[in-house]
Amino acid sequence: MTTNLQRPKRGKMVNGFDPAQADALDARTREMVDRRARLLGPAYRLFYANPVEFAHAEGVMMYDSDGNEYLDAYNNVVSVGHCHPHVNAAVKAQMDKLCTHTRYMQDGILDYAEMLLDTFEKDIAHVMFTCTGSEANDLALRMAKYHTGNEGIIVTSEAYHGNSELTSGFSPSMGENSRLGTWVRRVPAPDTYRVAAENMGEWLAAHVAEQIHDLQRRGQGLAAFVADSLFSSDGIFANDPELLTPVLKVVRDAGGIFVADEVQCGFARTGSDMWGYQRHRVVPEIVTMGKPMGNGYPVAGIAVQSHICEAFGHDMRYFNTFGGNTVAMAAARATLEVIQNENLMENARKTGAVLMEGLRDLAKADARIGDVRGTGLYMGVEMVKDRATRDPDSALALALVNEMRARRVLISATAANANVLKIRPQLCFSTDHADRFLTELKGALASVTT
Amino acid sequence: MTTNLQRPKRGKMVNGFDPAQADALDARTREMVDRRARLLGPAYRLFYANPVEFAHAEGVMMYDSDGNEYLDAYNNVVSVGHCHPHVNAAVKAQMDKLCTHTRYMQDGILDYAEMLLDTFEKDIAHVMFTCTGSEANDLALRMAKYHTGNEGIIVTSEAYHGNSELTSGFSPSMGENSRLGTWVRRVPAPDTYRVAAENMGEWLAAHVAEQIHDLQRRGQGLAAFVADSLFSSDGIFANDPELLTPVLKVVRDAGGIFVADEVQCGFARTGSDMWGYQRHRVVPEIVTMGKPMGNGYPVAGIAVQSHICEAFGHDMRYFNTFGGNTVAMAAARATLEVIQNENLMENARKTGAVLMEGLRDLAKADARIGDVRGTGLYMGVEMVKDRATRDPDSALALALVNEMRARRVLISATAANANVLKIRPQLCFSTDHADRFLTELKGALASVTT
Repeated sequence: MTTNLQRPKRGKMVNGFDPAQADALDARTREMVDRRARLLGPAYRLFYANPVEFAHAEGVMMYDSDGNEYLDAYNNVVSVGHCHPHVNAAVKAQMDKLCTHTRYMQDGILDYAEMLLDTFEKDIAHVMFTCTGSEANDLALRMAKYHTGNEGIIVTSEAYHGNSELTSGFSPSMGENSRLGTWVRRVPAPDTYRVAAENMGEWLAAHVAEQIHDLQRRGQGLAAFVADSLFSSDGIFANDPELLTPVLKVVRDAGGIFVADEVQCGFARTGSDMWGYQRHRVVPEIVTMGKPMGNGYPVAGIAVQSHICEAFGHDMRYFNTFGGNTVAMAAARATLEVIQNENLMENARKTGAVLMEGLRDLAKADARIGDVRGTGLYMGVEMVKDRATRDPDSALALALVNEMRARRVLISATAANANVLKIRPQLCFSTDHADRFLTELKGALASVTT
Repeated sequence: MTTNLQRPKRGKMVNGFDPAQADALDARTREMVDRRARLLGPAYRLFYANPVEFAHAEGVMMYDSDGNEYLDAYNNVVSVGHCHPHVNAAVKAQMDKLCTHTRYMQDGILDYAEMLLDTFEKDIAHVMFTCTGSEANDLALRMAKYHTGNEGIIVTSEAYHGNSELTSGFSPSMGENSRLGTWVRRVPAPDTYRVAAENMGEWLAAHVAEQIHDLQRRGQGLAAFVADSLFSSDGIFANDPELLTPVLKVVRDAGGIFVADEVQCGFARTGSDMWGYQRHRVVPEIVTMGKPMGNGYPVAGIAVQSHICEAFGHDMRYFNTFGGNTVAMAAARATLEVIQNENLMENARKTGAVLMEGLRDLAKADARIGDVRGTGLYMGVEMVKDRATRDPDSALALALVNEMRARRVLISATAANANVLKIRPQLCFSTDHADRFLTELKGALASVTT
């Protein structure tokens, strides 16, 4: 093992540009890639074998610097649509009035807090604001540890929960070279495609119980089980929406809490509920949220049950300079208003159903598609070498992502083997957009013969 | 000790509102305070014995919800002035065009990176972007630990470096109840008011060497010495601008690096240099920046020497969803343009000199002022019970902060005993504003008899 570790391989990224292939790029792209490396250093990664430069965007369309139009079926941050006029107007108006922090009193933060809390079960009583999902997860886990007095954290095997020291420590999807905490235990994701469990919830609960036992053997105890209820980076497992109940029972019996990471699946994306965990009919102790919260403006936060934050809030304090600032609150409120006023949850359900049906039709005609799964506007299409063995086809998935980019449709890939197409369009994606998407995917499947 | 720890005292905050005093508030304020506690929970803190609600702001003036004008001599985030038209115009234009992340190519991030790198010494070759100063410090220390293979971090005794698990672990100013890492060592701040060292740099270096020795005894080694070169939360020590050279020698001899936390003192605040560390004629391995970077838009980052981020960037990757997004870059670029085009560093020097002279005059006439120190537009005025014993007068400092708020001038207090008035106005503060400030401070000193 030691010899392998002497010079670790370059950190992999699903669907990332490989600088070793720079010779294949056109002059302009190559110049930008070189300039990026020179100015930003080696830690940044670009999407696609042939990276793309965008100049402007509107709704679900993005336009590159040559004016070519792309159908965006991937960017979930601008969740209510690129450059949404209602959100932008709210941000502009607030920017011209006042941009300040939470140590002065403001109605804006309280009005939004009330609106946001209305989307949760009544046990979830408080919200706190950060700037990023990583900060939200970092705060949630600091709180979980302080509340429980334990240090163990259990996640699924390819989870991603953030880029801070603490959160990257329980984000195995960051790759082999990124260190996991000694207080982290992994359980397999509830892979409905491969695991033949009669009751997936009991199956997962048994794995969690085994890891809790190990944490207790080492005196670490369980602080929290953290999961994104759609298991996004494990491969998007949405087909068994009630599996969390038995898992949370063993977690709570061990004195731990459940942190629902809604950074990717929250804010109506599932098409059925405002929050992903609600599909499982459970109530988390802490919910973390981020990406789509302000439609691009950096805003994130946690929602938490009173008893969980009581000691933390009393004994210490939390201040985040930009978190909950007046402009962030204006952006977040306007984004939530658009979700509600434009019925985007219903649109996600409706368009998602059309997309899902189309994907299933494609799967019927193409044995390379092993599985199609998802809910609302969040889908995974799993590419395999063989339907019988279910052997993952990473090369095919990546070829499809790049072929779709060539056809000017944006998607990515996920899962441990990066063999699952990740389809996650804006919530205002229409059935016409879904048709266009399906046409291009059909074309891509026909032209990619890897 | 154990009995004290059974129910920790409420986490203190310098200059914070105490909910136990809510009875003294007017009805509207009390209602907002209650509503905040109900919606946001117990971890939030408000400024002032009598919290203030702001409705709008412009330049260096803020206006409360009754229309009263306040002179802002504290908020450094909106460093080029509240609601600056050039920054706001740049943000609005970019918002309407495109708000997206760093995995697509953009000129904007590269143009700004180039502009920003021009403000550093040539050894500092790369910049990376986050959303908050906490994230910047978290990333810097992850990198320092990965690069050095060590885990020890040395900070000054009342340092503040962030709110994440890692950064709060080396932020002793968060208070007794906030846990410090077992890998953290503290050294006293270079307190030019109390320490009678012939050479303050050698004095501090000896303290640092002692802590390095202890870290090595425990097999932890030194990853980094982290300091804000104005020692903001220790009490603002700006009078000995070349003390870091001997300190960094012992740090580097032990294999550690220097992380300059410029979140508070960067971006021309010192009046003499763009970055606080530059007053010390040293070059850090990593510089972290935040608060004033986008004049209120959440943007932060690090600047780093190539060899420090080489392994980290190769072996792993760093992605921050909102960090370096197109709008953040527009805000940051416009802010830097204003600093340069409006000669705000020169203004900070000039207005700062007037302010400093006025403060020294006040000190001559009032023995309760033990020391006045600072540079540019960042000053500390230390209140003492007795000039001979230099006994800190916390109650007087807090009474002055609250009296200034009643006179509609915003400041705060800092240092372990919260007895140092913290004066940190926007960089566009004029000499007229300085005069108004000094008049009010003179009045406050006359009326506060604590």
